[in-house]
Amino acid sequence: MNEKRLQSQIDFIVELDKLKHIFRQTPLINDSRYENDAEHSWHVALMALLLSEYADAEDVNLLRVALMLLIHDLVEIDAGDTFVYDEEKNRDKSTRENAAAQRIFSILPPDQGREFRSLWEEFEKRESREAKFAAGMDRLEPLLYNYNTKGSSWKEHGIKSSQVLERNRHIGEASSVLWEYVKNLIADSVAKGYLTE
Amino acid sequence: MNEKRLQSQIDFIVELDKLKHIFRQTPLINDSRYENDAEHSWHVALMALLLSEYADAEDVNLLRVALMLLIHDLVEIDAGDTFVYDEEKNRDKSTRENAAAQRIFSILPPDQGREFRSLWEEFEKRESREAKFAAGMDRLEPLLYNYNTKGSSWKEHGIKSSQVLERNRHIGEASSVLWEYVKNLIADSVAKGYLTE
Repeated sequence: MNEKRLQSQIDFIVELDKLKHIFRQTPLINDSRYENDAEHSWHVALMALLLSEYADAEDVNLLRVALMLLIHDLVEIDAGDTFVYDEEKNRDKSTRENAAAQRIFSILPPDQGREFRSLWEEFEKRESREAKFAAGMDRLEPLLYNYNTKGSSWKEHGIKSSQVLERNRHIGEASSVLWEYVKNLIADSVAKGYLTE
Repeated sequence: MNEKRLQSQIDFIVELDKLKHIFRQTPLINDSRYENDAEHSWHVALMALLLSEYADAEDVNLLRVALMLLIHDLVEIDAGDTFVYDEEKNRDKSTRENAAAQRIFSILPPDQGREFRSLWEEFEKRESREAKFAAGMDRLEPLLYNYNTKGSSWKEHGIKSSQVLERNRHIGEASSVLWEYVKNLIADSVAKGYLTE
């Protein structure tokens, strides 16, 4: 046994605990509190495996998608959550998140640190079929939350349907079936007054 | 598109949100509050992918392990968390959890409901190499938490080192390297006063 290697991995596992303290702008469906990044990562990873039949691309590697989604928000341990509609904070998001990636993935043994960092960068670039499908799940979850809380975070931030369509277009790059579903959901949200036109 | 199928899957995804309200007996490492099942499921799924090199069995299917761990606690939405050292509650655990599985997995389209239920039963039986490895992760996480909170939940419930060794022996069925690590951790916990002999 390589004791140093295993200890680095355990140190990383302990570090992961901090993701449970990073809160998002999305309330839970019973609206009691905001969702944290660890719960969100669990939810989207499971969604990806559940909805894989709708991926437009063929031969999507689901193990890569799952790992990608399990780690996609780790940089927020240092960089915090950046609300998708916050233009100001989105300007330096990349700088803050790169510094975080440098620190956090360095806790791992070098080979795994490189693998995880590269998988996170792949997710951020949204070019590979795995990254596109993962990004679609990452957007679909808060949308379902907003719909099921009668638009709570849309209303709180005064978001319009054109913004929701624009910000969620990645779902369309993942799956035409899910995008069709989402467009209907957005139209229904406008009809029900959860979201302004 | 089969609209009914997709709607069942979306209903299941919305139902999943409830797992974020089921609390475990393990405090987070900064000891601010107890961990919930959704966070725990995220943590152990990621641990499995991170520590897969230590599985004693060959050709462990990691995608199965990940899905198994992502869903392993879903029955607790109805059945609640049963503390591993609570002998009283563990007596009717299986009855309560089977009823929960019946309701929760029935939300899914029948083929996926059967697949998920069967994967959950496989996890519970701990016979396949995937289930053994998954069970090892499920036990390792709270152990690392207890160590890193100076034995908080061990102290709260007056747990002894012999009980910890007995309850965590599944880690030994998953990985001899990790079991060696864990035995040292338990001995160190006794030496440091986190756990009584």
